[in-house]
Amino acid sequence: MKPLLRYQGDFQWEGVPVGPYKAEGTHFRGVTRQTLLGPDAGLRCELRYFEIEPNGHSTLERHDHAHAVVIFRGAGRVLVGAEIFDVRPFDLVRIGPQTWHQFRSAPGAPLGFFCLVDCARDRPVQPTRAELGALRTDSQIAAFIRT
Amino acid sequence: MKPLLRYQGDFQWEGVPVGPYKAEGTHFRGVTRQTLLGPDAGLRCELRYFEIEPNGHSTLERHDHAHAVVIFRGAGRVLVGAEIFDVRPFDLVRIGPQTWHQFRSAPGAPLGFFCLVDCARDRPVQPTRAELGALRTDSQIAAFIRT
Repeated sequence: MKPLLRYQGDFQWEGVPVGPYKAEGTHFRGVTRQTLLGPDAGLRCELRYFEIEPNGHSTLERHDHAHAVVIFRGAGRVLVGAEIFDVRPFDLVRIGPQTWHQFRSAPGAPLGFFCLVDCARDRPVQPTRAELGALRTDSQIAAFIRT
Repeated sequence: MKPLLRYQGDFQWEGVPVGPYKAEGTHFRGVTRQTLLGPDAGLRCELRYFEIEPNGHSTLERHDHAHAVVIFRGAGRVLVGAEIFDVRPFDLVRIGPQTWHQFRSAPGAPLGFFCLVDCARDRPVQPTRAELGALRTDSQIAAFIRT
């Protein structure tokens, strides 16, 4: 393992490929992934850098494992549970177990963020039709979410 | 747990106290700590922000657990094993088990970095006199280290 992964500017790191956020799906838009620390790094967490192009969004989902995110670039909004927050660089977002969450970039700016998760974790799930209905009873959440 | 820890500018986060790097010791100089994610955040790693004032240094130490660091501010140099690297913002430094390491800020700049470690980890140890002697057989390391 190389001790140093040099930052190259332009939100990329030396030798780290920019890959897809998820293998497939229509429940997200304009998101890339860079794995900065994988399970081979010897920690019990992984560190990824995700970037959402302007007017894009991550998947609306929840899971048992916790997330922690440090915003790194741009601007956007985040749904965490029943709250929607404006976020900007270096804000820290903490997402507890089984908490619905979705990241949206601003119309005119990308949203880049570091995301920290346990190596051992469950798979995210998306809302059922009934769960979506329940989420949409809140008009602000209804206007925010993208599916 | 609040979902959002707002970045306040000036390398500080809302409600996060700036505390000492370690409780005591003369083996470091001018270092502060902010705990951004403690063991209560529900992840198996903790995230801390350390800052070394100009011309300061962290402890020269090693331990069984791995470290990962994202440089956030300023400039400095890092010893990892037998190598010394110049580092600048957003470089990623990976420190494997039982690897001697020390962070030094530049004479004219602080060095701020995020440090990721497992919640369950062993205590760092400093070099014995014999280990220091062995480290100092390399003239570059001898010139770099501070004890």
